[in-house]
Amino acid sequence: MTQEKIYLHDIPLPEAQSRFIDALEKASLWGPLQAEEIPIDQALGRVTAEPIWARSSSPHYHAAAMDGFALRSKDTSKASDRSPITLEIPSHALYVDTGDAMPTWADAVIPIENVEPIEAHVDRHNWKALRLRKSLAPWTNVRPMGEDMVATELVLPAGQIVRPVDIGVIAGSGHRSVRVWRKPRVAILPTGTELVPLGTHAEPGEIPEFNSLVLAAQVESWGGLAERFPIIPDDFNRIREAAIKAAQGNDLVLINAGSSAGSEDYTANVIESIGHVLVHGIAVRPGHPVILGMVDVGTGETVADSIRQVPVIGVPGYPVSAALTGEIFVEPLLAKWLGVPHRERQTIQAVMTRKVHSSLGDDEYLRVTLGKVGDRVVAAPLSRGAGVITSLVRADGIVRIPSGVQGLQAGEQVNVHLYRPSLDIEHTILIQGSHDLTIDLIAQYLSYRGARLSSANLGSLGGLIALKRQESHLAGSHLLDPETGEYNISYIKEYLPDVPVIVVALIFREQGLMLPKGNPKAIRNLSDLTREDVIFINRQRGAGTRVLLDYHLKDMGISNETIRGYEREEFTHLAVAAAVSSGLADCGLGIHAAAAALGLDFLGLFQERYDLVIPKTHYESSLLTPLLEILKDQDFRQAVDVLPGYDTSIMGEIIATIG
Amino acid sequence: MTQEKIYLHDIPLPEAQSRFIDALEKASLWGPLQAEEIPIDQALGRVTAEPIWARSSSPHYHAAAMDGFALRSKDTSKASDRSPITLEIPSHALYVDTGDAMPTWADAVIPIENVEPIEAHVDRHNWKALRLRKSLAPWTNVRPMGEDMVATELVLPAGQIVRPVDIGVIAGSGHRSVRVWRKPRVAILPTGTELVPLGTHAEPGEIPEFNSLVLAAQVESWGGLAERFPIIPDDFNRIREAAIKAAQGNDLVLINAGSSAGSEDYTANVIESIGHVLVHGIAVRPGHPVILGMVDVGTGETVADSIRQVPVIGVPGYPVSAALTGEIFVEPLLAKWLGVPHRERQTIQAVMTRKVHSSLGDDEYLRVTLGKVGDRVVAAPLSRGAGVITSLVRADGIVRIPSGVQGLQAGEQVNVHLYRPSLDIEHTILIQGSHDLTIDLIAQYLSYRGARLSSANLGSLGGLIALKRQESHLAGSHLLDPETGEYNISYIKEYLPDVPVIVVALIFREQGLMLPKGNPKAIRNLSDLTREDVIFINRQRGAGTRVLLDYHLKDMGISNETIRGYEREEFTHLAVAAAVSSGLADCGLGIHAAAAALGLDFLGLFQERYDLVIPKTHYESSLLTPLLEILKDQDFRQAVDVLPGYDTSIMGEIIATIG
Repeated sequence: MTQEKIYLHDIPLPEAQSRFIDALEKASLWGPLQAEEIPIDQALGRVTAEPIWARSSSPHYHAAAMDGFALRSKDTSKASDRSPITLEIPSHALYVDTGDAMPTWADAVIPIENVEPIEAHVDRHNWKALRLRKSLAPWTNVRPMGEDMVATELVLPAGQIVRPVDIGVIAGSGHRSVRVWRKPRVAILPTGTELVPLGTHAEPGEIPEFNSLVLAAQVESWGGLAERFPIIPDDFNRIREAAIKAAQGNDLVLINAGSSAGSEDYTANVIESIGHVLVHGIAVRPGHPVILGMVDVGTGETVADSIRQVPVIGVPGYPVSAALTGEIFVEPLLAKWLGVPHRERQTIQAVMTRKVHSSLGDDEYLRVTLGKVGDRVVAAPLSRGAGVITSLVRADGIVRIPSGVQGLQAGEQVNVHLYRPSLDIEHTILIQGSHDLTIDLIAQYLSYRGARLSSANLGSLGGLIALKRQESHLAGSHLLDPETGEYNISYIKEYLPDVPVIVVALIFREQGLMLPKGNPKAIRNLSDLTREDVIFINRQRGAGTRVLLDYHLKDMGISNETIRGYEREEFTHLAVAAAVSSGLADCGLGIHAAAAALGLDFLGLFQERYDLVIPKTHYESSLLTPLLEILKDQDFRQAVDVLPGYDTSIMGEIIATIG
Repeated sequence: MTQEKIYLHDIPLPEAQSRFIDALEKASLWGPLQAEEIPIDQALGRVTAEPIWARSSSPHYHAAAMDGFALRSKDTSKASDRSPITLEIPSHALYVDTGDAMPTWADAVIPIENVEPIEAHVDRHNWKALRLRKSLAPWTNVRPMGEDMVATELVLPAGQIVRPVDIGVIAGSGHRSVRVWRKPRVAILPTGTELVPLGTHAEPGEIPEFNSLVLAAQVESWGGLAERFPIIPDDFNRIREAAIKAAQGNDLVLINAGSSAGSEDYTANVIESIGHVLVHGIAVRPGHPVILGMVDVGTGETVADSIRQVPVIGVPGYPVSAALTGEIFVEPLLAKWLGVPHRERQTIQAVMTRKVHSSLGDDEYLRVTLGKVGDRVVAAPLSRGAGVITSLVRADGIVRIPSGVQGLQAGEQVNVHLYRPSLDIEHTILIQGSHDLTIDLIAQYLSYRGARLSSANLGSLGGLIALKRQESHLAGSHLLDPETGEYNISYIKEYLPDVPVIVVALIFREQGLMLPKGNPKAIRNLSDLTREDVIFINRQRGAGTRVLLDYHLKDMGISNETIRGYEREEFTHLAVAAAVSSGLADCGLGIHAAAAALGLDFLGLFQERYDLVIPKTHYESSLLTPLLEILKDQDFRQAVDVLPGYDTSIMGEIIATIG
């Protein structure tokens, strides 16, 4: 069976949402599911299904609030420092511990440390009388009945997510159990002949299946119960069979993927065969091939009146699209079913570091990383690929670019929906510029110290420009000045004339050609790049490695145009290494360590210095203290030293103070 | 066995914390516990014990990013709208689905919708050739190997709390399991002869035990595993035995309570007998009788070298003290053991509504409720009683008043450590003023609509003053003008001359004397309050009920001084009812419903109107919309109507627009 339609019809997100909600409302599914009664020791994190009214008062009797003697306050009215009074025990004073019930005749407690025995050296439980030098007002040091809670009082509203202290008031007001909304059950069906289970060796064209893990974890974190089905191949009947089974036992079914309109995309047809498709295609990026539908299922027996409707979502296959579809459709639905208001994420104002184009027709969810630089929070856009799940992991938040808007300008003020507490943003060090493996290690060592590093790879020159725009705290840079043979200084003077900076040496490292194992094309030097049979892979403009290459090419009189692949750019050493490793290119210029990481051969050509360029204001801030400390950490130096081609002998040295 | 010491020696909180940390460091317990390897489908919420480096690249091959035809980009260089080119299948173009591996000879994919078949009406899998009118750059619509992750790359740092998308990158980078820090095990030992299990009938002097539930839920919510022990009576040997057993099987032991220095407080002695007490008494309120100690335990066998040290905390018995001790000592320790940075709660600036005195010697943790009124966030102090756990439930945050400070002034700017997201604060309606049972019901109905009501009982006049100071959004008021016989209007004109307000009627309700069941003292009218054998309980100054009482007493020529108990004040109708119900007083003036709630007799005397006083700016704000809607809600009106003595006939009517 193949499908008829080839094109999806994308509709705007708000329209898709309202069609879905309408259908849920019609099926009486746009509200909390059933309530269930659970013991309070299992109530943490659950949602109260009804208000909690106090059954008993707390305290349920007048209680001594101190260890001391209970007495009648009026008996003490004449006591003073100069004229102590004596009270007989037990007729006029009685020892009580904190929490003891007050004798019915008493209305105050005098703390043990404020009384004197008549006879010294007698245990206070055997005193016959006591002396006191202080008058007490009625009800001093007494917790009257109902001080905390009075029976019949509202102690907790419905719709409250139960916290530890809430368990205290529920129990303290006389309840042993609590009615909460039951957890929604969500079935997750991974489909696709190309999918292989995690841990299986994956051939080219085969994809390890992990979206179901992400979706299940989302469901759990939103208060639901997830059931992961085994992988189902692209087969209409098998998917249909699994979908029916899933719908019978669950409140919601997620079919991942087959939600597009390719030759092997069966999700829409499956839904149509057991219910109906409400929406197929939504103008939102990433994520547009989303299907929303509603199917009818029995309980498994064919009793007509037990048929119920179950929503089904066809979740796109790309991991970022899948996770965002969860956030956009599953999270609000689970909130509704759990009776909690679906609150938008906290937002923060930030300034875009770069221009971003966006399709006019789509709502775009742009992932950004954030840092507070000076007084401003800056937002650096991350990869927009729907398959780049690392971008979602690295994201501090999402900027929504609505349809009808063509994009964002650099410097534009945007609203960021936060993935992390805003406090974390304030503790984040933002480094932009050239990428080096050491940066990953710094991130790692910072995490041991409770600090966070966020990095964006812009190349060395991009990093200096970001500093100029006050968009990062520091930059990694290895820009060779062809005139002086010196690194970074002349560029800093040119690009950051008004910014006082400290230049701190990080490492020396070896640059050279990364080559496939065994160097099958026998590449020996830069001149070989001009050979007809050699495909090169380049770094982006402004990258220090690119500057280095161009410097040497010019020096050797080699024209760019004679190099095949010169125009294809990658943004990191590892990306270049990956391109060589995969056969995309025959060689690329990069560092020894990246070649070693992917098991490539390496032809060393130059040694270069890589510096950290740090504006003075940030250099002196407490934010950067842990980073500067790490440069002196012997463990860290050792971890860098073992990277092939690395030399830490100058690490931490101040190369220059400029401005 | 009784204890020697009677006085605790309170030391400052920072000193207590550093003694505890020193001892933990010496025992090598101030850092993460052991790591354990778990399957990634169980990793949600756990903390990575080591960095995750990619084992494989993702994608691990060059993948088609669209459904379409793979081809050589250079073959398309001359294609245009006017001069389409034709590519033969399968030698020069090959159909691929999204995610398929690229043929080794191809370097671009043209989407299916941009090509034309040579013969129409043939399934695309059977095409012999295709026509296209567009040139493609190399790598168009191809996801190169490693686009998302390159093998050896850092994908997740150590110390990361695993989120759903993190599970995606861990799995996507080739891992099936992940090393996380194991969960700390915490034993919780409720001790006290006065404690009875929840659900047991509690006699006066007996206390239902629920602190262990709160502490266990805290431990769970901070990532630990809690083990609750059964209640242990105040018996040195039995507590010691349980403490040893608890320490053997756990990383931390909480003994609750017996941490003070009363005659039945054994915790310090127990700790001394199996280890040593580091701190006994901390200058922090609530919570000061805290014990910090360290005990030595074997594994149960007597092997000398397997002896390890286990921290023990003596947790005070009052519920608020217990919960705060958890926050101050247990939460940071668990964070340390779990390898996550212990972040302070988010803070917010707020303005104190009332003056608060604080002891010079103590750090005080003052619970406050918050609301955003106009541009300011205001903080209203809640009950400071260590036994009033409802204050912790109602708290939106904590203001820390450091030792050395005598208190806070009304209007003072304070830093509030938030218990709720600051977004919740912006959605909170703050009502201060007179208390009425309807307010609880409004809170309840608002929670159904996803809104939140926070209330403080200041009495009617206090409510108007709070409006004047812009400290709440609305006030409940029932102030009778003795001159005019009218409610509220003249008071509003006097106290809020510059604030335009809308007065909305809420209800009519019956006021009268609340009496013990059967009216044993045969009280018939207000004159009986002057009888020698009658003890009255009053409402606070400024309360509408107090104004009503004073009005009628004056009218009847009765002097306050002839009424026993006139000086004892309660802040709510229910508190007055509780006082009567418990025998603290013989009668009190209040509403019929409060008497009925506690099963009291009621002697109706007057009917009065209770209004909502709402400044115009708030009346028109979207914040109050749901509240005003509720006044028209038939369900809500019915719920109020069934309260004894209530009449909703005028609910929602605008009584006056003033200013």
